[in-house]
Amino acid sequence: MSEISSALIVGTGLIGTSVALALRGDGVVVHLTDRDPKAVRRAADLGAGDPSLPAEQVDLAVVAVAPSATAAVVSGLLAGNVGATVVDTAGVKADILRDVRATVGDAVHFVGTHPMAGRERSGPGAARADLFEGRPWVVVPDRVDPNSLARAEELVRRCGGVVVHLDAATHDAAVALVSHVPQVAATLVAARLAEGEDGALALTGQGLRDVTRVAASDADLWVDVLTANAVPVGRILTELRADIDHVIAALAEVAHDPDWGRTALREVLLRGNSGRARLPGKHGGRPTAYALVPVVLPDQPGELARLFAAAGEAGVNIEDVSIEHSPGQPVGLVELSVAPGAEHTLSAALAERGWQLHS
Amino acid sequence: MSEISSALIVGTGLIGTSVALALRGDGVVVHLTDRDPKAVRRAADLGAGDPSLPAEQVDLAVVAVAPSATAAVVSGLLAGNVGATVVDTAGVKADILRDVRATVGDAVHFVGTHPMAGRERSGPGAARADLFEGRPWVVVPDRVDPNSLARAEELVRRCGGVVVHLDAATHDAAVALVSHVPQVAATLVAARLAEGEDGALALTGQGLRDVTRVAASDADLWVDVLTANAVPVGRILTELRADIDHVIAALAEVAHDPDWGRTALREVLLRGNSGRARLPGKHGGRPTAYALVPVVLPDQPGELARLFAAAGEAGVNIEDVSIEHSPGQPVGLVELSVAPGAEHTLSAALAERGWQLHS
Repeated sequence: MSEISSALIVGTGLIGTSVALALRGDGVVVHLTDRDPKAVRRAADLGAGDPSLPAEQVDLAVVAVAPSATAAVVSGLLAGNVGATVVDTAGVKADILRDVRATVGDAVHFVGTHPMAGRERSGPGAARADLFEGRPWVVVPDRVDPNSLARAEELVRRCGGVVVHLDAATHDAAVALVSHVPQVAATLVAARLAEGEDGALALTGQGLRDVTRVAASDADLWVDVLTANAVPVGRILTELRADIDHVIAALAEVAHDPDWGRTALREVLLRGNSGRARLPGKHGGRPTAYALVPVVLPDQPGELARLFAAAGEAGVNIEDVSIEHSPGQPVGLVELSVAPGAEHTLSAALAERGWQLHS
Repeated sequence: MSEISSALIVGTGLIGTSVALALRGDGVVVHLTDRDPKAVRRAADLGAGDPSLPAEQVDLAVVAVAPSATAAVVSGLLAGNVGATVVDTAGVKADILRDVRATVGDAVHFVGTHPMAGRERSGPGAARADLFEGRPWVVVPDRVDPNSLARAEELVRRCGGVVVHLDAATHDAAVALVSHVPQVAATLVAARLAEGEDGALALTGQGLRDVTRVAASDADLWVDVLTANAVPVGRILTELRADIDHVIAALAEVAHDPDWGRTALREVLLRGNSGRARLPGKHGGRPTAYALVPVVLPDQPGELARLFAAAGEAGVNIEDVSIEHSPGQPVGLVELSVAPGAEHTLSAALAERGWQLHS
């Protein structure tokens, strides 16, 4: 019944091509289409599927176009009876559901979904079959025919994702908080740098690099996302602006009433500590305080290999790695994150092999 | 003349203990003091120096206490003629210079400095001799006796840092831009999470983790830093708030004048792209667009070692590495950054050895 044996991918960008690669690798007959013929050709060249429209109705149509075009494309597919089930993958849900229902009525064969995976790069060339491996993939089950819901969930599983049921409004509020507002904040910090002096930028450390990493993301995609989730994002940004006003007021007050200023700043900083501590750790579990083992790394081929080989020989699993970029000098600092307790084994093993550790 | 053979470290936290470890490792006689006797003992246990005050004047006194206490401690050392040269390490410079001069006059033997190194953790236990290796270390040369300036620069070199001359106001404006405002922004985004629902936080991706990483930093230290640099930070935050107002207005306008709203959002996002692109890359050079090679990594000991060994055998230098945390599934995705061009060699070598790459 719900088995997917054929699919049409509409939109062969990063998400659509990655879905196509995953389904094709799992034995599904995949057709590809995109308003840009070059994008279809590139996706087909990557082995993502057949660059021609299906002759018969497919089991599943996956819409992976810009959020602003999604409702129209979904409505057209439903009206044309192109797919038995139509799924979208846009990063916002309520607006699209509303527009689709306004156009074609109940739309019980349409399932709104959102794979929580992405990259700063876009286009079919950035796609990969494992993009969704282990990632949450939101499925909105409201008013959906059971067979179509089963197909949508099968899609998620066959792409390696983890189904998360949320209603559209809850989804939109959640992504506003954990994705859209952080994107705006990173963008605004980066925007200040556009006018900064070179001398100031030379003092850049890892903190600024981390805060602004997502500010490199595709502007047009984000215009679409923010526009389609304008109300939840605007609400959280307004709360955030109240905090900024508070910080600005506290800084202005420092010269006159330092105690009040300091207390106000401290309250905000502690709230930031609390919020940060709530982020889930690796594998979606509770945050784990990893133990860190810092190692000095000569900047030449093979050094990381030697380092990880030593860790492997010690039987220690490296949970995470960060490399500190050192301006002006060809030496790196690597921080290895390991399970609490394992840092002693690892440090001893590395020191024994001549690695320079935390003094 | 300017050779440092003895030093007193005042404040054995992260910075002071790291300086002590570096100087001691380089043959300097190091004395340690801190208002907290336990912190001195821990630093001495780590091999950072002698936990007693020097009997004679030292060549160099390094003040590494909280920014709010720095001017008083520096003034006391100068008044007591404790060090031939007194250096501070606080993250703000103009306020401290002004307060020291107000207390002890010209203070030509005092050199304001700021090592651009730090961690989210604090205390002597987080210290390491190589903390400053290759990092910029700002030295403020205004109205300083040449011999004292030479000693301050010798300190930087012996700790492995890179001397950057800036006047106090330029330094303070620069760190407001590249460090203090990003800290506030990260804190404010994280503060929003303090009230978020668990379900929303489960959708967290790497972007949010990056944006909020520094929000875990010590609140009391940051109260001091922000207070002491209140004017430059307030100025940039006020500019940033104007951009937030603009974004909030654009989001509110989407329902009525979508074209204006979209244009306004796009302008801000593009400005963020430009600012981000100006960040210096590894080793302080111009940003390099590394090529990325994504690899699927089974989550068990030794896999990273095998991966890097394979890269080493292929003769490819890994410039950076990031591990994507996959919620709900024990598989990781590793992105290896390599020099442009080298990705082909590396991909081929890895595929040959059975690694699962970008499809």
